[in-house]
Amino acid sequence: MTFEDVEAAARRIAGAARVTPVLTSRTLDDRLRARVFLKCESFQRAGAFKFRGAYNAITRLSEADRRRGILAYSSGNHAQAVALASRLLGAAATVVMPVDAPAAKRKATEGYGARVVAYDPAHEDREEVARRLQAEGDPVLIPPFDHPDVVAGQGTSALELFGETGALDLLLVPCGGGGLLSGSALAAKRLSPGCRVIGVEPETADDATRSFRTGTLQTVRNPRTIADGARTASLGRITFPLVRALVDDMVTVSDDDILRAMRFLWERMKLVVEPTGALGLAAAWRGALDVAGRRVGVIVSGGNVDLGTAADLLRGLPPED
Amino acid sequence: MTFEDVEAAARRIAGAARVTPVLTSRTLDDRLRARVFLKCESFQRAGAFKFRGAYNAITRLSEADRRRGILAYSSGNHAQAVALASRLLGAAATVVMPVDAPAAKRKATEGYGARVVAYDPAHEDREEVARRLQAEGDPVLIPPFDHPDVVAGQGTSALELFGETGALDLLLVPCGGGGLLSGSALAAKRLSPGCRVIGVEPETADDATRSFRTGTLQTVRNPRTIADGARTASLGRITFPLVRALVDDMVTVSDDDILRAMRFLWERMKLVVEPTGALGLAAAWRGALDVAGRRVGVIVSGGNVDLGTAADLLRGLPPED
Repeated sequence: MTFEDVEAAARRIAGAARVTPVLTSRTLDDRLRARVFLKCESFQRAGAFKFRGAYNAITRLSEADRRRGILAYSSGNHAQAVALASRLLGAAATVVMPVDAPAAKRKATEGYGARVVAYDPAHEDREEVARRLQAEGDPVLIPPFDHPDVVAGQGTSALELFGETGALDLLLVPCGGGGLLSGSALAAKRLSPGCRVIGVEPETADDATRSFRTGTLQTVRNPRTIADGARTASLGRITFPLVRALVDDMVTVSDDDILRAMRFLWERMKLVVEPTGALGLAAAWRGALDVAGRRVGVIVSGGNVDLGTAADLLRGLPPED
Repeated sequence: MTFEDVEAAARRIAGAARVTPVLTSRTLDDRLRARVFLKCESFQRAGAFKFRGAYNAITRLSEADRRRGILAYSSGNHAQAVALASRLLGAAATVVMPVDAPAAKRKATEGYGARVVAYDPAHEDREEVARRLQAEGDPVLIPPFDHPDVVAGQGTSALELFGETGALDLLLVPCGGGGLLSGSALAAKRLSPGCRVIGVEPETADDATRSFRTGTLQTVRNPRTIADGARTASLGRITFPLVRALVDDMVTVSDDDILRAMRFLWERMKLVVEPTGALGLAAAWRGALDVAGRRVGVIVSGGNVDLGTAADLLRGLPPED
């Protein structure tokens, strides 16, 4: 994959995806002694960057393939993204979710017109569900990260960011399956060759960090972290080599680090951001990374979070010292 | 006062105040069958439009007057605005707050470098406090709304909005003391003469609506509403005639209307908005105003709200039907 794939994706999603705002804060800059640019994918359609990749992938299908319908497995932001992108492109979408997925996420996905198929991971396996759905009309699977068109689409956020800020010293990117991170690195290495691209993971879900360091694909299993978008088991067949080749470093942060960054984003910057979306800022916030004197881009990846849950989490956090 | 006062204010605050983003949402437009432009003063410095007026007023003081120091009475957004504007302009600020003001607001005001003087409204009156402070160095009082420089500064938000959107059919503006509403109307009447300017109040704090209708200044006393920025007792000597002359209509909304609009802004648009900031959208949201087919500007006036309190309020609201 190359930068040209990201550029082509940007042309395809133009007009459908939102060019999200880049926000800055003098308070934040003073606190980090840096110049920080927050690329706010929380304002992307369906509330997260995922729409970019889903839309790019579905536009590339042939008319005949689109008529087969679209299939996704997700209880998270990919579900809503595929549902909305499918509707906009006139394809029927089916989203497979575990039965215990939050009702709000199921409702939002259905709100975008998708059929939600619930399955019980304790009694059924996904392959069985897939076979059943395949028999119904052989829909086209859109994976959440490990697909070239998805990676290229996710890279358009960083492409927009560099277009607005020019060269940066650092780019901090949340990492789950590595789609956003790979795409961002493809954009950064062309548009700002001196920029160090850093992936950020929760410390309990540090599979990509270990994979990056060892050169061998590592996994995690149901890690406990509030950053639900980064609980992914491992990098993928496509994203692992891209991360190895293009990413400069990986860092991990604790759930408390995430919450402190999230509190700043909500209270001071007035942004509703989900825990996964605060990963990048968290790496700079608590000193996991030295950003002093640098121009720092941060991808704020999404804002889909239950408000009550988020408020409860923030209430449990001691006041800033 | 004229449009030229607002233009002059815009030149004075340029570089100090933020040009706040105008956000749109296809979901919102579909729901209201209108084209809606949200002017997000929640992203203004110190979290609300108030910074515009405070900064404009303080820049206009002579060097000698600035040396006397700045005085404000406020437990709300005006306090933080005066504190920050004073610091930026090198003046010492004193803010008088009731002893029971929320600790977070006091801390934020002190965080911007102001001295906070607490007084007990049950045992002292404000005049007494004022006399004591006057004796200390005769500081210059910056009132929260009833001052030409404050009104002109508040009008710069609508000025920016029209600069971005061009002509609008309707402009919805929260109304407390009428500073934002008067300033917005001054901008609208010049930049989009056919635009109907509508002030929005909580139904329990409908003094300005009654003043507008009767032509005689009406008051309220400690009204119960979640929109704390609109609890002001009445319009002022300067704002009342401006509202009468330039505003096309006033509407009122219930606290539930405000909360429903606020829930949409938080959940779907990922914006942390305070209840007063949701007044404008609330008027369109629940049909208090027919907006179908129109181009509608909405001033989202601020985002300073305790997250836990807001989440509790939203939790108490029945799900959207």
